[in-house]
Amino acid sequence: MALIVQKYGGTSVGNVDRIKNVAARVKEYWQQGDKVVVVVSARSGVTNELIARANALQALPDAREMDQLLAVGEQETIALTAMALQSIGVPAVSRTGAQSGIVTDTCHTRARIADISGGDILERLDEGKVVIVAGFQGRTEKGDTTTLGRGGSDLSAIALAAALKADLCQIYTDVDGVYTADPRVVLAAQKIPEINFEEMLELASTGSKIMQTRSVEFAQKYNVTFEVRSSFSAQPGTIVKANAKISEGALIAGVALDRSQTRVTVGDLPDNPAAISAVFDALGDCGLNVDMIIKNLGTDGHANLTFSVGNDAVAQTEKVIGDALKRLGSGTVRSTHQVAKISIVGVGMVSNTGVAGTLFAALAKVGVNPDLITTSEIKISVAVEPDKADAAVRAIHTAFGLDKKTA
Amino acid sequence: MALIVQKYGGTSVGNVDRIKNVAARVKEYWQQGDKVVVVVSARSGVTNELIARANALQALPDAREMDQLLAVGEQETIALTAMALQSIGVPAVSRTGAQSGIVTDTCHTRARIADISGGDILERLDEGKVVIVAGFQGRTEKGDTTTLGRGGSDLSAIALAAALKADLCQIYTDVDGVYTADPRVVLAAQKIPEINFEEMLELASTGSKIMQTRSVEFAQKYNVTFEVRSSFSAQPGTIVKANAKISEGALIAGVALDRSQTRVTVGDLPDNPAAISAVFDALGDCGLNVDMIIKNLGTDGHANLTFSVGNDAVAQTEKVIGDALKRLGSGTVRSTHQVAKISIVGVGMVSNTGVAGTLFAALAKVGVNPDLITTSEIKISVAVEPDKADAAVRAIHTAFGLDKKTA
Repeated sequence: MALIVQKYGGTSVGNVDRIKNVAARVKEYWQQGDKVVVVVSARSGVTNELIARANALQALPDAREMDQLLAVGEQETIALTAMALQSIGVPAVSRTGAQSGIVTDTCHTRARIADISGGDILERLDEGKVVIVAGFQGRTEKGDTTTLGRGGSDLSAIALAAALKADLCQIYTDVDGVYTADPRVVLAAQKIPEINFEEMLELASTGSKIMQTRSVEFAQKYNVTFEVRSSFSAQPGTIVKANAKISEGALIAGVALDRSQTRVTVGDLPDNPAAISAVFDALGDCGLNVDMIIKNLGTDGHANLTFSVGNDAVAQTEKVIGDALKRLGSGTVRSTHQVAKISIVGVGMVSNTGVAGTLFAALAKVGVNPDLITTSEIKISVAVEPDKADAAVRAIHTAFGLDKKTA
Repeated sequence: MALIVQKYGGTSVGNVDRIKNVAARVKEYWQQGDKVVVVVSARSGVTNELIARANALQALPDAREMDQLLAVGEQETIALTAMALQSIGVPAVSRTGAQSGIVTDTCHTRARIADISGGDILERLDEGKVVIVAGFQGRTEKGDTTTLGRGGSDLSAIALAAALKADLCQIYTDVDGVYTADPRVVLAAQKIPEINFEEMLELASTGSKIMQTRSVEFAQKYNVTFEVRSSFSAQPGTIVKANAKISEGALIAGVALDRSQTRVTVGDLPDNPAAISAVFDALGDCGLNVDMIIKNLGTDGHANLTFSVGNDAVAQTEKVIGDALKRLGSGTVRSTHQVAKISIVGVGMVSNTGVAGTLFAALAKVGVNPDLITTSEIKISVAVEPDKADAAVRAIHTAFGLDKKTA
């Protein structure tokens, strides 16, 4: 008998039949005597439909109204999920974000959670009810509807698990766990039974699409152990926690691949800290994340900065830096070619030497010459040519002994 | 410069283009300096889609969850309408029922309004903003989402107009006003410029589909003058108010026709007040409305009750009465044939004799022998054979001098 928060994403509640599947799974836990809080997303596709309608009316829709609009997606799902549970004999009641006391700041469309009271959730659980909570949404102090941005439903679930002191938080998704590499690229990839918060965080920030970094950060900050698993199978998934058990001899936990990066170069920059920080301040002010930064000194005493940025942010990045350079009165910016970013992640790196050596040897074996290189305590990222990325990932996966043993 | 509450129904906001039309109309008033509160329904069709999804999960969906579900329809429309206004330069902000302080009782799916604070609507109006309010919905004291039942958005608008002490309340719909008869039946029917609350109430309860009686009752109780007009034209509509101006010599305001009635007979009932009230109490307990009640004494000292009931309520009516008769140990119930109910309505009747005579003469002229007959201060209803109803309505319309003068 435990208090469990379960989160089901958009594909898991994509239609009436899938909602019935969710209800059947919830019922199993409820029948065992567990107290279950279910966090649901909008049906897949609904959010995009709503955005399309908004865009037909306003090129850049007002953020407050956008939140009022987008919140309906989850509100529909909570009611339908409650009905699905009731129809199989499980008492259930739904709660919007506001009704669950999820209070946020006023940054519409990407609000941050300020406080979670949980409303009357614990009382309803004590009555034997399953409580269904709308993910992705909250309200401001004043009562305006807010949404939490991408990956917001995961965040709702983890934050609720923290607020309710849940014994377990399960993130049900369309993949059955965290793998040592993307199984579509590396056939020999294996599901990782347990992984540390830090590793999950690095994987999330380096291309794994399973979860957004902010949800993992929140879980780490409040020490919420959670499990990533599939809503379409009964297999256990991957447990994400502090001090996860690491397979003996494993130097790294996994290899991440992000294909959608572009290499941007800022040239002819005055080589002084003020000029360089002017560039990065401008990026930071616009919420633009760049990675794998390298500074070279040019022949004429000017500096060149090279870094990678997500493909979808290239245009904005060029504009923001261009404006900053105009103010500086010097410098050029150009985005050259697309790159793939390969990252190896693992807490095992900290105490082991030779990790970088193994990595570069593996790359050399498949004829890949890495370009930008950055490292952190538990991560090494390299930029490679996109058409060689798959072969490189497979070679690295093998080199670090991560391949599944075939019987 | 006035404070105006405008209500737009589901067809008026049925798609993005129609929402733009609504925005353009609102802008006209706003530009004149009027303070405008806009109450909107769900896009036509949305509510039925949501109900279909609910029914796919639960044969008789839980009423609380149904309200949580149905409220999303209007929540979508308010956000889209606010965006449409902003896109043409009109500052606008949306409010759900809960955010507008519309507090109801806990009768889910047909809640009654208990209190309207209006939230911060007046402050936003003072700032020059148009405020868009979700019709049809409110919240309980405890914060549960409720809906107001059929015609609920009209009620929201009229109740808000009362709470905000609006100068005018406009109900925009797909007809351009209240007519002396259904123009599809009577080509010579005329739009009524002004009509009394009492008359509108009787028309609403006798077959006019324009508004539900509860909205008119609310308007009458709080003396809210309102106008019924079309969102697809610029023509003035019909003003509904106390002490409306009546055309000289007009005995009646209009003729209503309700084709969907069935004649039900309860026979062999003990002729005592207890037995008769047992029947009507049972109907009342289930919220079943019957009309045109007639009691006959049978030859054996037993009584027969005959009345009409809406076709959609026949099965439930028979069951409820059947159960009551079983408890009484006597009596039979049967629904015989469908009837059409024709009603003439007008405050002019009170002080004029000869109205009934004119009515029956008109019916006789087209060979119609009325069956059930009931009267009130300002209304006479008769039941006629359905296939003769149109001819009867036309004859009555002519007899009372309501036909449009052709040039």
